[in-house]
Amino acid sequence: MSGLQFPATAQDWRAQARGRLPRFLFDYLDGGAGDERTLAANVQAWGQATLRQRVLVDVSQVDTRTRLAGQDCALPLALAPVGLAGMMARRGEAQALRAASGAQVPFTLSTVGICGLNEVCAAAPAGAPPPWFQLYMLRDRGAVRALLEQAWQAGCRTLVFTVDLPLPGMRQRDVRNGMAHRGARAALLRASQLLARPGWVWDVALRGKPLSFGSLASQVPGGRDLNAFKAWVDAQFDPSVTWQDIDWLRTQWRGRLLLKGLLDVQDARAAAAAGAEGIVVSNHGGRQLDGVAATAEVLPAIARAVGGQLEVLVDGGVRSGTDLFRALALGARGVLIGRPWVWALAAGGEAGVRQLLAAWQRELLLAMTLTGVTRVADIGPEQLDRVSSQIRP
Amino acid sequence: MSGLQFPATAQDWRAQARGRLPRFLFDYLDGGAGDERTLAANVQAWGQATLRQRVLVDVSQVDTRTRLAGQDCALPLALAPVGLAGMMARRGEAQALRAASGAQVPFTLSTVGICGLNEVCAAAPAGAPPPWFQLYMLRDRGAVRALLEQAWQAGCRTLVFTVDLPLPGMRQRDVRNGMAHRGARAALLRASQLLARPGWVWDVALRGKPLSFGSLASQVPGGRDLNAFKAWVDAQFDPSVTWQDIDWLRTQWRGRLLLKGLLDVQDARAAAAAGAEGIVVSNHGGRQLDGVAATAEVLPAIARAVGGQLEVLVDGGVRSGTDLFRALALGARGVLIGRPWVWALAAGGEAGVRQLLAAWQRELLLAMTLTGVTRVADIGPEQLDRVSSQIRP
Amino acid sequence: MSGLQFPATAQDWRAQARGRLPRFLFDYLDGGAGDERTLAANVQAWGQATLRQRVLVDVSQVDTRTRLAGQDCALPLALAPVGLAGMMARRGEAQALRAASGAQVPFTLSTVGICGLNEVCAAAPAGAPPPWFQLYMLRDRGAVRALLEQAWQAGCRTLVFTVDLPLPGMRQRDVRNGMAHRGARAALLRASQLLARPGWVWDVALRGKPLSFGSLASQVPGGRDLNAFKAWVDAQFDPSVTWQDIDWLRTQWRGRLLLKGLLDVQDARAAAAAGAEGIVVSNHGGRQLDGVAATAEVLPAIARAVGGQLEVLVDGGVRSGTDLFRALALGARGVLIGRPWVWALAAGGEAGVRQLLAAWQRELLLAMTLTGVTRVADIGPEQLDRVSSQIRP
Amino acid sequence: MSGLQFPATAQDWRAQARGRLPRFLFDYLDGGAGDERTLAANVQAWGQATLRQRVLVDVSQVDTRTRLAGQDCALPLALAPVGLAGMMARRGEAQALRAASGAQVPFTLSTVGICGLNEVCAAAPAGAPPPWFQLYMLRDRGAVRALLEQAWQAGCRTLVFTVDLPLPGMRQRDVRNGMAHRGARAALLRASQLLARPGWVWDVALRGKPLSFGSLASQVPGGRDLNAFKAWVDAQFDPSVTWQDIDWLRTQWRGRLLLKGLLDVQDARAAAAAGAEGIVVSNHGGRQLDGVAATAEVLPAIARAVGGQLEVLVDGGVRSGTDLFRALALGARGVLIGRPWVWALAAGGEAGVRQLLAAWQRELLLAMTLTGVTRVADIGPEQLDRVSSQIRP
Ligand SMILES: Cc1cc2nc3c(=O)[nH]c(=O)nc-3n(C[C@H](O)[C@H](O)[C@H](O)COP(=O)(O)O)c2cc1C
Ligand SMILES: Cc1cc2nc3c(=O)[nH]c(=O)nc-3n(C[C@H](O)[C@H](O)[C@H](O)COP(=O)(O)O)c2cc1C
Ligand SMILES: Cc1cc2nc3c(=O)[nH]c(=O)nc-3n(C[C@H](O)[C@H](O)[C@H](O)COP(=O)(O)O)c2cc1C
Ligand SMILES: Cc1cc2nc3c(=O)[nH]c(=O)nc-3n(C[C@H](O)[C@H](O)[C@H](O)COP(=O)(O)O)c2cc1C
Repeated sequence: MSGLQFPATAQDWRAQARGRLPRFLFDYLDGGAGDERTLAANVQAWGQATLRQRVLVDVSQVDTRTRLAGQDCALPLALAPVGLAGMMARRGEAQALRAASGAQVPFTLSTVGICGLNEVCAAAPAGAPPPWFQLYMLRDRGAVRALLEQAWQAGCRTLVFTVDLPLPGMRQRDVRNGMAHRGARAALLRASQLLARPGWVWDVALRGKPLSFGSLASQVPGGRDLNAFKAWVDAQFDPSVTWQDIDWLRTQWRGRLLLKGLLDVQDARAAAAAGAEGIVVSNHGGRQLDGVAATAEVLPAIARAVGGQLEVLVDGGVRSGTDLFRALALGARGVLIGRPWVWALAAGGEAGVRQLLAAWQRELLLAMTLTGVTRVADIGPEQLDRVSSQIRP
Repeated sequence: MSGLQFPATAQDWRAQARGRLPRFLFDYLDGGAGDERTLAANVQAWGQATLRQRVLVDVSQVDTRTRLAGQDCALPLALAPVGLAGMMARRGEAQALRAASGAQVPFTLSTVGICGLNEVCAAAPAGAPPPWFQLYMLRDRGAVRALLEQAWQAGCRTLVFTVDLPLPGMRQRDVRNGMAHRGARAALLRASQLLARPGWVWDVALRGKPLSFGSLASQVPGGRDLNAFKAWVDAQFDPSVTWQDIDWLRTQWRGRLLLKGLLDVQDARAAAAAGAEGIVVSNHGGRQLDGVAATAEVLPAIARAVGGQLEVLVDGGVRSGTDLFRALALGARGVLIGRPWVWALAAGGEAGVRQLLAAWQRELLLAMTLTGVTRVADIGPEQLDRVSSQIRP
Repeated sequence: MSGLQFPATAQDWRAQARGRLPRFLFDYLDGGAGDERTLAANVQAWGQATLRQRVLVDVSQVDTRTRLAGQDCALPLALAPVGLAGMMARRGEAQALRAASGAQVPFTLSTVGICGLNEVCAAAPAGAPPPWFQLYMLRDRGAVRALLEQAWQAGCRTLVFTVDLPLPGMRQRDVRNGMAHRGARAALLRASQLLARPGWVWDVALRGKPLSFGSLASQVPGGRDLNAFKAWVDAQFDPSVTWQDIDWLRTQWRGRLLLKGLLDVQDARAAAAAGAEGIVVSNHGGRQLDGVAATAEVLPAIARAVGGQLEVLVDGGVRSGTDLFRALALGARGVLIGRPWVWALAAGGEAGVRQLLAAWQRELLLAMTLTGVTRVADIGPEQLDRVSSQIRP
Repeated sequence: MSGLQFPATAQDWRAQARGRLPRFLFDYLDGGAGDERTLAANVQAWGQATLRQRVLVDVSQVDTRTRLAGQDCALPLALAPVGLAGMMARRGEAQALRAASGAQVPFTLSTVGICGLNEVCAAAPAGAPPPWFQLYMLRDRGAVRALLEQAWQAGCRTLVFTVDLPLPGMRQRDVRNGMAHRGARAALLRASQLLARPGWVWDVALRGKPLSFGSLASQVPGGRDLNAFKAWVDAQFDPSVTWQDIDWLRTQWRGRLLLKGLLDVQDARAAAAAGAEGIVVSNHGGRQLDGVAATAEVLPAIARAVGGQLEVLVDGGVRSGTDLFRALALGARGVLIGRPWVWALAAGGEAGVRQLLAAWQRELLLAMTLTGVTRVADIGPEQLDRVSSQIRP
């Protein structure tokens, strides 16, 4: 019966993804750090902003288009970088990029994507804009330079530089599932989970090879399997990075620079001073420090402080086109979405992501229609009726 | 066992309706837009107003009667327009009108009722007042004029003009159930749901024909089945309607005009300026823009702003005679109820609706008795003990 | 297994009572009016008062004794009047009175108790104080006078006069269970519930006869069975009672008069003016007007207004000795408990009620010990650490 | 399947402990007083403090080390005294002490530990600091003196003196389980629970003997079995203890004195005046007076009042390294943990406790890294983003 159902919302896609992915993969995708409070808060907080309905306004010409990082978009939304997305569907990042191109929204490729820069760029339909590229600071600055060069060559012009990962967070589900363990017991646990999802094994694990980090292939010496890649990446986290490294980065990258992973007004000001074109207000989807604020909570203050100087994007817990509308009303220029597109990808491949994006665009349009706003740029606090005290205005 | 139980509250009728209706129909009736937050908030918000009990007042003569839109009513309540109500019970709108007449409360016929204006008016007992008629703005203004004329001829004198439907909302349950889809898979899904409710198929689908939009029969060229009607209606939603169209409407309709679907003080003021006799503070039962405020939240401010100039009615989440009392205490002149009467209709037909209305009248009487108020007109903020901060006073 | 468990809290006694009583009886006892919000709020609200622990105070001599209505009590608690309590255990009121006498707390006999005044008074051990007697105003003032005389003769000196019952509340569970219906279907439903509890049928229904309203026997002409009595009582509710009737009552009753069922400061002031010795702040355990405030919420303001002039008792949702302590800290002189004693009675008879009272006394003593208070009269706001905003201080 | 899982959080260890311990023991460990509101509040309250993430700070040298009661610790945490811990694993306190020594955190031995002072001290690896010793005031002051002497001889230099136990709290689970009852029914209940955990019976009850209170052996005349010991202890609770007894104690104990079980600013000031080196803000893990505030709630005010004069530790509901970080940010110098280490001990023995401590240290390190703080002493209110109104700042 449930197989017959038609997924309508992000949560529906999530339910279907859960049925298709081996448990440790689903948990890797779905989970957050610690007790997953920030993860839950992210989702819940958007709902604290109540919309203000207006009637009898001429809304026959509502337009959801906008520009993000200088690029025309059908709606103010980009797909967030998600590591290992290519484990969720066969050559997953390539499928997602095609869906994003079709829907006219930017796609961001993670440093640790399965498909590499070249594979993803090659997947883009003719004339489609190139993906954005996400990078972490690596201890090996030479590798950083090489990756920037590789991205530029592939055509990328927007760099999403993630700053909230001096160390990886405590993802407790990965510990529980044995994903973070070595040894026979953990292997047995993983194997039993794989056996329960033969469809995935056949479709993704076997026919979707190779499962390594595509963009890092030239950096990881002798890297053949995923474990070698992971070991390399783990050794590359660099907790000594400071704003001076951003200055250095600025000299290395000619394109647009978005700093991703800020939650504090002071840090946002520093980003503006460092010459970034934009920031992504983000807590890494609740995957880093559990216990920090929901992004919706801190967005208004940050947007007020630096919204005039740089492009303020936000991610975390956006689960519908209506949430997207709320983010704009609270001051964002656009949103990134992480888990939702990967759920849709895991459950429905490229077509799934397209359906999701189409539904959200329709929801955004509806929210504009019923609040009486016809252009994205006009969405603001006037379209909110009440903002609970949790969101600091 | 449960079949033996006696329904006492609206929720009891709902449970019984769920057992009788095919799932896609029940979901159509029960559901709201998006994540159904506004739907839930509507119901929950009334409870935020705490009643003030008084004792040792002479309450031997408590009177629940009042006038709504110039019509004598046994209690300040009208049945809200609900499209397709005739799918819930055999010739459903006719049954409901009889129940409403018996209980001496107004019945509102939806534009998209299964029974047409003539059938419903004919069902009224001799001497009973005619139903109220609800209309959406249609692109085809000629059709609008024809429907107004048809309503007037049938005897209707109160027009409920719905303004919160420039586009239909995103009812996610309809997507999930395949009701919003074409194709074999959706048809199969619907068929399996029908098979599970043979009683309904026999009683309503077969013996209750024709299942088309009665009042629109003369407008829809060659309309034979429901799908043709739906297609016509979908093409008629008009998002370009503005207050000027209300001015035009005012010239077309000699009877009373109630604008339904306002949530904002400014819009309420505009309604007064446009010469409406009344408004219905409504978010369409949470079926249009999910995320807007509960109606109880915005009612007091609107009542204060325009209550002196026009009749302020309210609907959404009213689930008992006590909620009705709360609505009056918060400033409404009366309430409309949507789902509750249709649940009772689906589960118990005309008799069910009568029982529901009798129970609510008794509850209203009890609330008046225990707050020490003997006349409907005397119910006001004095009868509230505390209003949580969620309701803006 | 669960049969082996030892009941520790009121909730444990409740669970056991549920297993022993026919469902309609348990629901009659357990339920409240409407959606049972006030019932739930009563219970929940006490917890909003946070206790203030103090250490290293000499608490070797903590004394829980006090006086209520001029009577020495081992702790500031009385058993509330509960109609039909004698249906819950064989000759239930007589058993409960013995338990109360043993524990040295007052027992209140309801107007509609199964055991009459004489039976209950006869059950008291030698030297034990007589019960308190509860009365509603009846249309037949002669009957009122006769009952007062009967109570006085039986030795009662404290009259609990209930003023929140101009009409009986809407107890929806009774409707659902068919208890409020006549006819074959309702009878069948009741019978099936009786069949599920043969122990109760044998012990209470057969061996516990007669099941009529003992104190009313001389008033109800030809009353043989419970239905005749109920019909008489239903016809006697008098919604025309006002403060003038209290003046009249005052002239008829030489003993102490407690008015039960007040929730409002103004009414409390009127009670003081009318010459009552005390009041019971009560919403009838959430059984009358659902939606009124929890008693803990309104208690502080009432105690402040009239606590100097008369004895302020409170009931509703008190579920432990700690709640009792909270009630005192919020201004009450003592509490009444309703459902808890009847649950213990239904599950464990006289011994059950004794155990419950002993446990609560120990809890009160512990609360005094850990807040560093040695005498009941010293309990006050100083012993509270924080009172949530829900309770209006 | 679940047996294959890897415990990641304190809650995971709890789940495993539940599967290993006889129910009455698990309930003794897990439960609290009354309705367990304070127990739940303890856990929940820490989450009310939202952390403030900062980025691009050099966090390559984060150090979690600190000093507690003059002792070097790898992180600001000590194992709280837990009576009967040796019932949870074979010679449990000895195992826990070894784990604590390995992790470089203090271990506190309860007055009513199964392993005595000598056994525990002997278990410490060479060079490891001795445990802290916890004591209650006993009626027999000679026994107090003897225990202090015994502790000093064994090498203990820090005394944790518990002041919130003038009487034992009402642990309702113990009543329900029959643990607090004598007689055949209770014995049967306990036996059935033992039969369900044969592993525990073999490993702990049989091979872990003797199960008596090790440190009290010389005090309890002729004490052979646990019941004799319990009877002795129960007779020793002394509710007459006051601050003068603390003065006396101060003269008897040359080492450091920590008073454990304070919740009030005034009491904290008195502790400073009495010459204690530190206090533990504690409500005994919600096991004494249910209804008092969560410790996180009262901590800030106490730390502000006396933090400059003595070492303010806190316990209750700390469930992760992130909670530990929060406690420091709210003003504590360090935390004690009770149930978490015993859950890990019950489920995994010494290795379990080590794993738990290692995971928490990593979490603390991560919280410091992502809030941009490198030294424990620098953690303060600046690292909090928002503190809900429940926590009084
Ligand atoms: C499975 C997963 C992997 C992620 N990998 C990356 C990554 O490689 N780089 C990055 O900057 N952010 C990564 N993120 C964070 C996302 O870019 C984004 O900030 C977050 O998912 C937004 O929250 P949402 O999932 O609630 O929409 C990842 C998130 C998830 C869920
Ligand atoms: C199934 C359904 C169909 C509805 N159809 C109409 C309609 O045709 N026209 C209209 O103005 N409102 C319509 N409404 C909205 C109701 O008139 C009313 O505003 C709403 O149901 C009130 O909320 P309640 O259901 O919580 O009482 C519909 C509501 C439901 C539930
Ligand atoms: C089953 C039941 C019957 C009651 N009957 C009476 C009654 O006959 N007279 C009266 O004054 N109050 C009556 N009450 C109300 C109680 O006296 C008391 O106010 C209430 O039970 C207190 O709330 P509690 O049950 O939460 O303790 C009744 C309550 C219950 C639950
Ligand atoms: C099973 C158990 C036994 C305890 N025994 C003692 C004890 O003997 N002495 C003492 O001072 N505290 C005792 N405590 C309280 C703990 O020292 C500590 O204050 C409390 O457990 C902290 O709360 P937490 O369990 O939420 O971490 C005990 C706690 C538990 C759970």
